[in-house]
Amino acid sequence: MALTLGEIVAGIKPLDEKAVADAGAHTAQLVMPPRALGRLHDIGERLCGIQGTITPAVRAKAVLVMAGDHGIVEEGVSAFPQAVTGAMIATFLAGGAGINALASQADAEVWVADVGAVADVEAAALKNRDRLLVRKVGRGTRNFARGPAMTREQAASAIVTGFELASGLIRNGADILGTGDMGIGNTTPSAAIGAVLTDRSIEEMVGRGTGVDDAGLARKRDAIRRGIELNRPDAADGIDVLAKVGGFEIGGIAGIVLAGAFHRRPVVVDGFISTAGALIAQALCPRAIEFVFSGHCSEEPGHRHMLRHLGLQPILDLGLRLGEGTGAALAMLVIDAAARVMTEVMTFAEAQVPGKEG
Amino acid sequence: MALTLGEIVAGIKPLDEKAVADAGAHTAQLVMPPRALGRLHDIGERLCGIQGTITPAVRAKAVLVMAGDHGIVEEGVSAFPQAVTGAMIATFLAGGAGINALASQADAEVWVADVGAVADVEAAALKNRDRLLVRKVGRGTRNFARGPAMTREQAASAIVTGFELASGLIRNGADILGTGDMGIGNTTPSAAIGAVLTDRSIEEMVGRGTGVDDAGLARKRDAIRRGIELNRPDAADGIDVLAKVGGFEIGGIAGIVLAGAFHRRPVVVDGFISTAGALIAQALCPRAIEFVFSGHCSEEPGHRHMLRHLGLQPILDLGLRLGEGTGAALAMLVIDAAARVMTEVMTFAEAQVPGKEG
Repeated sequence: MALTLGEIVAGIKPLDEKAVADAGAHTAQLVMPPRALGRLHDIGERLCGIQGTITPAVRAKAVLVMAGDHGIVEEGVSAFPQAVTGAMIATFLAGGAGINALASQADAEVWVADVGAVADVEAAALKNRDRLLVRKVGRGTRNFARGPAMTREQAASAIVTGFELASGLIRNGADILGTGDMGIGNTTPSAAIGAVLTDRSIEEMVGRGTGVDDAGLARKRDAIRRGIELNRPDAADGIDVLAKVGGFEIGGIAGIVLAGAFHRRPVVVDGFISTAGALIAQALCPRAIEFVFSGHCSEEPGHRHMLRHLGLQPILDLGLRLGEGTGAALAMLVIDAAARVMTEVMTFAEAQVPGKEG
Repeated sequence: MALTLGEIVAGIKPLDEKAVADAGAHTAQLVMPPRALGRLHDIGERLCGIQGTITPAVRAKAVLVMAGDHGIVEEGVSAFPQAVTGAMIATFLAGGAGINALASQADAEVWVADVGAVADVEAAALKNRDRLLVRKVGRGTRNFARGPAMTREQAASAIVTGFELASGLIRNGADILGTGDMGIGNTTPSAAIGAVLTDRSIEEMVGRGTGVDDAGLARKRDAIRRGIELNRPDAADGIDVLAKVGGFEIGGIAGIVLAGAFHRRPVVVDGFISTAGALIAQALCPRAIEFVFSGHCSEEPGHRHMLRHLGLQPILDLGLRLGEGTGAALAMLVIDAAARVMTEVMTFAEAQVPGKEG
């Protein structure tokens, strides 16, 4: 039986602080100068708190790409036509997109959830057709510059759908999940969510997305400004923000974050759009962010403001601005390395190496 | 027949600029917004220039850890006793060190070259004993605060030894090499090399290494200052700098860098000590640095000055300060990912995805 959003949030417990402390004590014994692997120790110890063990494992990896379309594209906010959303879903299943190359490197499965694309993707002929999960909450959102993007019921449904799909991957053995997104126009609702929830200005939060020109950037900022003024999203109510200026795939990503926290599995959040989803999850359940790693810092200028608001430090900073889960897939390799430092490195005593003098 | 250093340098040719240009044209066709994977494209295109192809491969990976001891430890510059150098060589062969965990994650072989440890490591009982290459140029350097660290002949021999060992790994199939170091006290000669070759002050270049206290830091700075004043290394002569204030393993690392450039294989340089080796290689052959990737930015404060002098931007910045090749091993994963973006991602035409509008 499906859980309600309230039941999901109620089921999210804090990190296991005993495991974190035990992990820190173990790190101090490793055959190296104190904490000489820097953030790898911090990551490894948080994994221990998430999984409740000092022998964390993040071997089985999956990236869940949430796809949806956006009515706001009517305002001329994207450089690409809406048909690209469906075409890219097909490319993910054919194995030819950026996320496929990076996930293959990380030995991560790529799953694609259509939670709101306008098109129906004809997957029958594609290589990984069984990796497409069709759970449409709608066929594209409405133009939020003219009214709410979706109903409150749709917003809750998008989140619960993401939760259920991610929970299914965890039940099937995933140790760690990465979030991904696909949706032409989706930096616009993401920036709107960021502006509402971090209280940053629209100028700070809005960038060029996939590459609009100056006029496009002005249209994008204007559409977001009008959308926020018209809809008056309530920053204290994550579902309201998602419904008024969000997107189906962004709600789905919020659901992945909640699923990680609920089932005590790490979730690696990708770039700008995924982080907007994490902001929605934080609004619903602040504690859920303890289970989140930020994969990378995007070139999209608002991203670092979002990360600061979440209290997350990105693992990588390589100038990525693709989405699809690419930054999450790449960062999973670092997180896996951090787990191996915790489990595979000998202590000074085991290695029979003399310690620090004096 | 062994090559001389002069023959090695003469054999190093520039990047294949045609391959770099072809790679850039290919990147522009990939099914994503222009250069949306940021630095992964830059890395991938440089790989193309190194290997002379637009289908680069960096699958077979090896980390070569150069080990040596340092007479300068007499001055009280390290927090650890000299016996640790030999004990850590044994730990690398037993598979229990930080580099073993990270190299295993990267699917990289770990090779250890003893080019100048004081101790003889009894490897017979250790798991990977065949991965130890004993080619001692000396048994520890002399204390460079009191005279040159080694003879000019030893300095050239350390570099050629590193070149030969790295060339052997390449002949046996390595597509990419990572440099590593082990040597108690070796941040001290590295900082001295950095101060001489980058013309930065000793204050900017010298940090706490494995963790000396304030008094140790003062001793370290003083020893380096005395060593440079006494020996007067010639910044225009890389062999002279290595001989007067360097170390055997640092020379070996310079040799790895030259081998990568000579055989046209990428070399991933690890942190502070490895980068001092790259500075020596640059002094001998500036062009060799075109074949080098900086794996990460170390916590050791002088490292970023060295990288700026080399014109290299580090791939990772995770607060590592261990050495052993750990940052190189981790960065190899990103470089491998960059190669896969070049070879595995479809073009817009292949994926049949509509392009940018207008």
